[in-house]
Amino acid sequence: MDFKDVPAINQFSPDKMQKINLFETQNFFCDVYCLEPGQEQKIHAHKDEDKLYFVLDGRGTFFVDDEQQELGEGKIIFAPAGSNHGVKNTSQARLKLLVFMTPNPNFK
Amino acid sequence: MDFKDVPAINQFSPDKMQKINLFETQNFFCDVYCLEPGQEQKIHAHKDEDKLYFVLDGRGTFFVDDEQQELGEGKIIFAPAGSNHGVKNTSQARLKLLVFMTPNPNFK
Repeated sequence: MDFKDVPAINQFSPDKMQKINLFETQNFFCDVYCLEPGQEQKIHAHKDEDKLYFVLDGRGTFFVDDEQQELGEGKIIFAPAGSNHGVKNTSQARLKLLVFMTPNPNFK
Repeated sequence: MDFKDVPAINQFSPDKMQKINLFETQNFFCDVYCLEPGQEQKIHAHKDEDKLYFVLDGRGTFFVDDEQQELGEGKIIFAPAGSNHGVKNTSQARLKLLVFMTPNPNFK
């Protein structure tokens, strides 16, 4: 059975946010993002792909189009296809996210 | 911003497993499943859709093709398109799952 232990994934780097892929098919990819305080995924957009960010640990500021909000553990945020979206760890602690994107642009 | 507070979703029923939809587009749906002890999602298959089960709380027995495994909080399980898959709450406590399915068969 293909499964992963998400709490065991703690791959942080002082250089930049780390993305760790868990699963990938043509339909989606699922990653863990690890952000030290101050690190970010810059605001960007995907024409056709929806994204979900689920906060596993910590708090971050999420950006979707013209809105921004600081959200913590247990929140799940939807960034629809075409939206400008990103996340920054604006807290003093580590931020860990489970991220789901669909479809997978690498298979276009 | 479109977000949900996953820990606040606790919709259990003595009748059967509850599915609470969080987000849905043509690309995916994302649900919370709430299973009382003994409740299950029977083994079934989707020809074209991939599914991920992420264990939020509790423990359950997961079935993917000819394998079965009891897994708890923090595990994420991949049931690829075409696989026979399901889950049963074989524990004595409540089981809560975050579930992604892609693409969304309701938009075919």
